[in-house]
Amino acid sequence: MLNRVRSAVAHLVSSGGAAPPRPKSPDSPSATSESPAAAPGAPKSPPAKPGTASGSGSGAPAKTPEARASFSRPTFLQLSPRGLRRADDHAGRVVQSPPDTGRRLPWSTGYAEVINAGKSRHNEDQACCEVVYVDSQRRSVTGAPREASQSQGFCFYYWGLFDGHAGGGAAEMASRLLHRHIQEQLKDLVDILQDPLPPPLCLPSTPGSPSYSNTSHLVGPQSCWSSQKEVTHESLVIGAIENAFQLMDEQMAQERRGYQVDGGCCALVVVYLLGKVYVANAGDSRAIIVRNGEVIPMSREFTPETERQRLQLLGFLKPELLGSEFTHLEFPRRVQPKELGQRMLYRDQNMTGWAYKKIELEDLRFPLVCGEGKKARVMATIGVTRGLGDHNLKVCSSTLPIKPFLSCFPEVQVYDLTQYEHCPDDVLVLGTDGLWDVTNDSEVATTVDRVLSAYEPNDPSRYTALAQALVLGARGTPRDRGWRLPNNKLGSGDDISVFVIPLGGPGNYS
Amino acid sequence: MLNRVRSAVAHLVSSGGAAPPRPKSPDSPSATSESPAAAPGAPKSPPAKPGTASGSGSGAPAKTPEARASFSRPTFLQLSPRGLRRADDHAGRVVQSPPDTGRRLPWSTGYAEVINAGKSRHNEDQACCEVVYVDSQRRSVTGAPREASQSQGFCFYYWGLFDGHAGGGAAEMASRLLHRHIQEQLKDLVDILQDPLPPPLCLPSTPGSPSYSNTSHLVGPQSCWSSQKEVTHESLVIGAIENAFQLMDEQMAQERRGYQVDGGCCALVVVYLLGKVYVANAGDSRAIIVRNGEVIPMSREFTPETERQRLQLLGFLKPELLGSEFTHLEFPRRVQPKELGQRMLYRDQNMTGWAYKKIELEDLRFPLVCGEGKKARVMATIGVTRGLGDHNLKVCSSTLPIKPFLSCFPEVQVYDLTQYEHCPDDVLVLGTDGLWDVTNDSEVATTVDRVLSAYEPNDPSRYTALAQALVLGARGTPRDRGWRLPNNKLGSGDDISVFVIPLGGPGNYS
Repeated sequence: MLNRVRSAVAHLVSSGGAAPPRPKSPDSPSATSESPAAAPGAPKSPPAKPGTASGSGSGAPAKTPEARASFSRPTFLQLSPRGLRRADDHAGRVVQSPPDTGRRLPWSTGYAEVINAGKSRHNEDQACCEVVYVDSQRRSVTGAPREASQSQGFCFYYWGLFDGHAGGGAAEMASRLLHRHIQEQLKDLVDILQDPLPPPLCLPSTPGSPSYSNTSHLVGPQSCWSSQKEVTHESLVIGAIENAFQLMDEQMAQERRGYQVDGGCCALVVVYLLGKVYVANAGDSRAIIVRNGEVIPMSREFTPETERQRLQLLGFLKPELLGSEFTHLEFPRRVQPKELGQRMLYRDQNMTGWAYKKIELEDLRFPLVCGEGKKARVMATIGVTRGLGDHNLKVCSSTLPIKPFLSCFPEVQVYDLTQYEHCPDDVLVLGTDGLWDVTNDSEVATTVDRVLSAYEPNDPSRYTALAQALVLGARGTPRDRGWRLPNNKLGSGDDISVFVIPLGGPGNYS
Repeated sequence: MLNRVRSAVAHLVSSGGAAPPRPKSPDSPSATSESPAAAPGAPKSPPAKPGTASGSGSGAPAKTPEARASFSRPTFLQLSPRGLRRADDHAGRVVQSPPDTGRRLPWSTGYAEVINAGKSRHNEDQACCEVVYVDSQRRSVTGAPREASQSQGFCFYYWGLFDGHAGGGAAEMASRLLHRHIQEQLKDLVDILQDPLPPPLCLPSTPGSPSYSNTSHLVGPQSCWSSQKEVTHESLVIGAIENAFQLMDEQMAQERRGYQVDGGCCALVVVYLLGKVYVANAGDSRAIIVRNGEVIPMSREFTPETERQRLQLLGFLKPELLGSEFTHLEFPRRVQPKELGQRMLYRDQNMTGWAYKKIELEDLRFPLVCGEGKKARVMATIGVTRGLGDHNLKVCSSTLPIKPFLSCFPEVQVYDLTQYEHCPDDVLVLGTDGLWDVTNDSEVATTVDRVLSAYEPNDPSRYTALAQALVLGARGTPRDRGWRLPNNKLGSGDDISVFVIPLGGPGNYS
């Protein structure tokens, strides 16, 4: 499965369409150096792949993704070379959105972004919005075209935010390819997901074999096992997204040698398919639905604090991953040599509470997880615990790899769009942590109400206006020494990217 | 710490006060054989331990727990030899409660239990209700009595339900000793928990050293670490309970050789201390608060289904624990040899969704986790994944130990009793799975309302009446061939034990 996507990307990257490698400063994961050339090139067309057409910010599959390969910002922004330079200006921090002219994003999705205030050379966030067609995998044994009775393919709508760190390569690669991996995973399921019967437990060996329905029910509930799980269509889509994340991460690992995929990225992805919205999150971005003014959380953040017990358990079971430098125990602060023999508060991997333990020599090692809030770190290095990439990430001044502690698996939450009649003011808001660092769910809900009520319900530009208001509100305005919010606190100095997806569903607003 | 409790129990057991060893049927974990002798003996008194007085079903610490060592049911039931035989009758299934005469349980707690319908020879549930005094650990350096300025000890109220399996030894041991382990863990904290200041991060090496306040703030927030966690008093109590569970489990492991602690048990424990209720659950018992008719869940069940990912991760990271007999992958049913090469639905440890994979030889192994609902099993053997004991438990017809997959750590939930003015109808209900197998939270809430409204609010017997109604309602009545519920479904054939704790707090109802 991976090979099919890999061959496409290998061509894409080697053809000069991809960003050139960016050297990574070894001692400073957050400091990047060179960025991809901003000048637009004339990338070669990749070999046509049947059934993998994918659009780029349009309502229907149209262009191939390679068309934007030479841009460092999402193609749907349609930035000219001059626009790209403006978007790259840390001093001006101009908020970017797709132009009013031209085709709108699917569902009239709103989007806005702004570069950081100097934290890294370039904006390390990336975004993707696509309509992806999935053709059926099935062919007859002879390779002849499918019979008329066999089901057709389907489209899924796709939005992705990728918050890069330690370089922009992983975020850029994920923004170009993760939806292709999802597409590949769904190919096997085209017929199954459109069949009202429960998914077959067993399929023939290859997708090209005769129709699954001939063999799938060979072994029924009456088999040797007393019971068998009922597997839902929904859980197949979740499994497809989960495996797509894993394959994307494996591809990054394999191609990093040849193409230097630098850094890593958080990934927050939305898939709309057959009436349901799937929100998959790996990292510290966040998705919320604002419906009739009420907030419905659609993701959880994965950080050293929220995943402490998973990390500690891994360190406990595989102490070799800690080298001789780290302890899996947590202490409220660094233990000092003079405290040997005293008793200090600690938490082990099975504990949620704290207790005192006598300090021994091993406890002087650095804790695997330390710090609080935005300062929390795994191995004193990284502040998020899920995402894609980071295969080269090492502990500062050490050869100890951090990747084993990071998970590429997202948590997927499902929202059934058909269970509620949505009004034009009901939206799904996706934001990278630059947004959520300085605002919260209820403030966002207030902004949703304030901005949308200022526009006609059928004005499709209202969602971009809302995305811009959210980014502006989190960025702040240039006052005194810094970007200030109305309460005079500092705005977010991070890259900020926001999608606003109206929940009217496909067709209503597209 | 363990040694202090161990020495007490070693004496207790060797003095003849404990239940005699029960041989365990090696191939049938759910079938027990001999039970402790029902005849009351005259147990020797254990050596007096300063500061460890503990009552047995009375409002104040009074008797030592050894007094009930020769009974196979909780002492607070005050069963005569004849009463004990009646309680042991599978045909009659008489509901047992503390007698109306004599001292009430603390807080006028209600209790009722019934033996199973023949599933095991004896009732393998055990219960405990105590008021436990915790004296301060601190002594001056010279060993002289504490100064007047130093704080006094405190009491905690304690309720425990222990649902045994594969023998009653673990449940009986836990019912006698787990509160002592909690008491030991809290000794260090007597002064700290009564001090409004945040807990010190560091204490002197031994409890006997000069008062902690002299040295605890040696290293303050201004130390080398940029931040330090704030640890709450509440999280210290949680840590104490967690460590007490672990030490109880270790004690069972160590003493099983000498005293044959057979089987294992789920443990559901409530500690009331300094205004807060701590509910600690390891297993599939359940606690709910019914407040003003509304249900507040106070525990989660730990079963092969709810802990699937933890179990699979352990099998994945430590494949040697699976032998050559099990696979960590989950399949919706057993894979058959003839399906080799076909593709079957599966879930890996990182997945919540399902996907298809090609069946390979290793997939023919038995899944680590299989089955659904009450039939779900770890290694085809055990249906709960947390609890105490089970150190001898092996996979059927194998030498593979199951214990590494079981966790002795409880999940602790906290309820602040001071945040709400409780009325006499607000109760905390604890029940073993025999109750919850045939009823649910809202049905219990309905019974709470129905029974309590039939009694005067100040009638302390109403909580025992409620506990009896809950047990009777889950047991059913003897009709046709079996114990039937009003809807003609089968009642629970399992042991059932229920505590009903009024939330008026200490003093109001005691």
